[in-house]
Amino acid sequence: MCRWLAYSGTPVLLHELLFEPAHSLIDQSLHSRLGVETTNGDGFGVGWYGEGNDPAVFKSVEPAWNDRNLRELAGHIRSGLVFAHIRASTGTPVQQTNCHPFRHGNWLWMHNGSITRFHEVKRDLQLAIDPALYLDLEGSTDSETFFFLALTFGLEDDPPSAVERAVGFIDHVGRSHGIEFPMQMTVATSDGTRVWGFRYSTEGKSRSLFYSTLVATLRQEYPDNPLFARLSDETRIVVSEPLGDLPGAWNEVPESSYGVIQEGQDELHHFTPRPPA
Amino acid sequence: MCRWLAYSGTPVLLHELLFEPAHSLIDQSLHSRLGVETTNGDGFGVGWYGEGNDPAVFKSVEPAWNDRNLRELAGHIRSGLVFAHIRASTGTPVQQTNCHPFRHGNWLWMHNGSITRFHEVKRDLQLAIDPALYLDLEGSTDSETFFFLALTFGLEDDPPSAVERAVGFIDHVGRSHGIEFPMQMTVATSDGTRVWGFRYSTEGKSRSLFYSTLVATLRQEYPDNPLFARLSDETRIVVSEPLGDLPGAWNEVPESSYGVIQEGQDELHHFTPRPPA
Amino acid sequence: MCRWLAYSGTPVLLHELLFEPAHSLIDQSLHSRLGVETTNGDGFGVGWYGEGNDPAVFKSVEPAWNDRNLRELAGHIRSGLVFAHIRASTGTPVQQTNCHPFRHGNWLWMHNGSITRFHEVKRDLQLAIDPALYLDLEGSTDSETFFFLALTFGLEDDPPSAVERAVGFIDHVGRSHGIEFPMQMTVATSDGTRVWGFRYSTEGKSRSLFYSTLVATLRQEYPDNPLFARLSDETRIVVSEPLGDLPGAWNEVPESSYGVIQEGQDELHHFTPRPPA
Amino acid sequence: MCRWLAYSGTPVLLHELLFEPAHSLIDQSLHSRLGVETTNGDGFGVGWYGEGNDPAVFKSVEPAWNDRNLRELAGHIRSGLVFAHIRASTGTPVQQTNCHPFRHGNWLWMHNGSITRFHEVKRDLQLAIDPALYLDLEGSTDSETFFFLALTFGLEDDPPSAVERAVGFIDHVGRSHGIEFPMQMTVATSDGTRVWGFRYSTEGKSRSLFYSTLVATLRQEYPDNPLFARLSDETRIVVSEPLGDLPGAWNEVPESSYGVIQEGQDELHHFTPRPPA
Repeated sequence: MCRWLAYSGTPVLLHELLFEPAHSLIDQSLHSRLGVETTNGDGFGVGWYGEGNDPAVFKSVEPAWNDRNLRELAGHIRSGLVFAHIRASTGTPVQQTNCHPFRHGNWLWMHNGSITRFHEVKRDLQLAIDPALYLDLEGSTDSETFFFLALTFGLEDDPPSAVERAVGFIDHVGRSHGIEFPMQMTVATSDGTRVWGFRYSTEGKSRSLFYSTLVATLRQEYPDNPLFARLSDETRIVVSEPLGDLPGAWNEVPESSYGVIQEGQDELHHFTPRPPA
Repeated sequence: MCRWLAYSGTPVLLHELLFEPAHSLIDQSLHSRLGVETTNGDGFGVGWYGEGNDPAVFKSVEPAWNDRNLRELAGHIRSGLVFAHIRASTGTPVQQTNCHPFRHGNWLWMHNGSITRFHEVKRDLQLAIDPALYLDLEGSTDSETFFFLALTFGLEDDPPSAVERAVGFIDHVGRSHGIEFPMQMTVATSDGTRVWGFRYSTEGKSRSLFYSTLVATLRQEYPDNPLFARLSDETRIVVSEPLGDLPGAWNEVPESSYGVIQEGQDELHHFTPRPPA
Repeated sequence: MCRWLAYSGTPVLLHELLFEPAHSLIDQSLHSRLGVETTNGDGFGVGWYGEGNDPAVFKSVEPAWNDRNLRELAGHIRSGLVFAHIRASTGTPVQQTNCHPFRHGNWLWMHNGSITRFHEVKRDLQLAIDPALYLDLEGSTDSETFFFLALTFGLEDDPPSAVERAVGFIDHVGRSHGIEFPMQMTVATSDGTRVWGFRYSTEGKSRSLFYSTLVATLRQEYPDNPLFARLSDETRIVVSEPLGDLPGAWNEVPESSYGVIQEGQDELHHFTPRPPA
Repeated sequence: MCRWLAYSGTPVLLHELLFEPAHSLIDQSLHSRLGVETTNGDGFGVGWYGEGNDPAVFKSVEPAWNDRNLRELAGHIRSGLVFAHIRASTGTPVQQTNCHPFRHGNWLWMHNGSITRFHEVKRDLQLAIDPALYLDLEGSTDSETFFFLALTFGLEDDPPSAVERAVGFIDHVGRSHGIEFPMQMTVATSDGTRVWGFRYSTEGKSRSLFYSTLVATLRQEYPDNPLFARLSDETRIVVSEPLGDLPGAWNEVPESSYGVIQEGQDELHHFTPRPPA
């Protein structure tokens, strides 16, 4: 299992986002509170939008807590849309091509959870990937296969629908292999403009997921907080577990739902996997 | 492209095999003479048979010439059947799961060359892999796919036939994609008892491959050489390029042929790809 | 802080030693019970005596729990004298030259603990190192400096005396810098024949250290245990924390003491730092 | 030996600087033309000024030619003052703390060449380092020791004088050890505003060093070149070897001299080591 963070809003230094919070993602790499594993030391990745259309991705097989390059880059890169992910492998090798976020064109994707008994369903799932995409599979994780299925089902056109179809397909294939609860997930994806966050598991006991309270509200409750004064009203964070203990700052994403972070009003909807026709 | 070495015979320290020869494999990682690339710095791997039935495999993404662990292990591990491979990537990522030798049960496999435009034929080739094996694909190289095809076609029962069928299939799939010369290869494989070495390319211009002269002959010609005095008559080395300039020590493996190193008389045969029925 | 294990006795596969016990050292890399840090993921090292006079050392900056090469090697290397160490950095970089065990000639050395405020005393300590040894300092840890001081004070001739003088010197230098408790340590060192284990801290609250009960006794208490049946009477393990919960199997090394594992009767003595004259 | 590049001028993507030129630094990592070694595959480093006062430094032990993170970052980081260095180790370990550029506060430093028989003079040189700086030595290269000596001799106040004193000291210590030609170097250093480049060797046969022709001149000679149209008149590159074969674009830095790249007129002066008083 893993932990992740998605940030959208006022451009900040990655250091402010990844290292400075009380219970930062880097801290979670050593001491996760809500994860299945307390240690998430099997590599990490950071993706951000900045120069050019496509996001940059920096990945390492070292634990995030002791990677000097991450600390260096975090102190010198500023972005308004950031994905970060710390990995606890569920068995597949620790290599950069297995680190999240995954990228396709201007899309980023990261996942916490797993496809149950992935080894057994791997071939059936990968055969369903668009042949043109299949060639670009580089790693061996369930998460990358899941991403490529979502792309196959139209992620670039309609993310919620594509993820619902991908999950419906995975649930279907899993059950045909006798797997009771095939899917366990929280997922974030972005095209550089909007961010979608999903929480679902076949079992209905999904990995934790939280979103930050509206900055306007936080500013009102904490008028002396300099951070809230600086962040735009559009700023929002979605995280596997809260970055600190500030009362009122974090809200749990409900089971079987997804949210959209975007210009103007954000959205929260029910998530319903769509089985193959 | 890459360089490799297969050794079978009197147990030796890996150091004697990999570091000490005049133009050793480690030297070839920086200064290959006959390779397509002079530098083979994209990781390496060593496999050897010793304790237990299955061989050990040590792999690293660092260049072989500056890997301290390799130097350490080479000075302390002794084996009578050793595979070593230095990699020059043809595009796929530098990660341990892409380093040779690959292993399946008690079998080792390493490859120099490439499947032409692998990206285009990858899916067709991987679909032909035995579904039970497909699940164990860990890397993204053409060489691993080739190994798994050979296993699918019966490597464990009849290696020459299986490799001929795998290559016939790859040639067939490649041509159906409009590829004139789909296959370029030297390959070594072993079950821990015998070693098979193959040289073939669709074009008939294969990567270089050499085998060492009979130790009995070398001993006669070089009566004062302490190494030849020490090695058993059964000892044989197969290499991408000679390990030194000793006259009479190295013989080119002919185009489109394969050899078998085994107890008693070694063999050399013609290699004929078998197209799918 | 760190965790370590020293084994002397019947030659075993490293895998039996490092992976198979209930609360193995590899398990401790993720979930230490008695360590200052629960995670020891900042690299590791294994040293063993076998071929040749000098021990082999294998080191990696990856966490021990997910290092494939360690697992491979552990399954194929057999030795009767093994040191293994998992690291939790106290600030110095995660690099192979900072991983234990350190080696000098046929000597191995590993350390858990720290020289308090090492940064401040580093120069004074390193100036006291024998100039001929100074040149071989490769890393930046307090532990390597400690080792080189012990060598300077005669480790190769009389280990207990040399360590007592090195620690006395470190205590002296530390106090001259206003440091109340300069030293915190458990240490193991070996020349390939005997193993010395030390437990000491200026404060008198040293890191945990345990030694295994005599095999003869264990065999008597657990007559059906196949492991105890196989191990020689001379076999002994010293560890930062017990490898399992077997009643009667582990004994705490007393504060301020050191033990010697050797042919015949092992020894346990009081440890008294010797201040510089 | 190594290769390096220092850029000062119009902010550019690192990719334009490191990957796009005909004979780019990345190309030189595999195929150097003028270096002592054709392969510079023992790690690399990039430093750049941007956010904040202090420069960022990204280092890796992988060869530059196959490091995916370098390629990612190069495509997304823009800077007007960039140092890049590819390493060919002269014996010290391949680890990040031995990669250039080195940093102290807002200063960067990189070096090609070596202190002859560094092992023998290491202690004498390091004892001369300001004790407050000594504590920050992290690696084991001659280049880092050289940097710390230059800092000790006043680099931050008067770089040419400090380097002349450091080199005079190194020449002096070397000769007292019976070393005929103690110093071989090209060096670049910067405070984020100006860049100093040095070329010197005791022997008078220094490693190659080149600086780019004035952009105004290049623009006149190549009126259709879009790059020259885009770069400011202040833009200047200093490199170990030319990045391409454009006639008139590169000028050799004379033996025993140093240059200053700065706002307004750049400078070129004679370099004279100053022996200790």
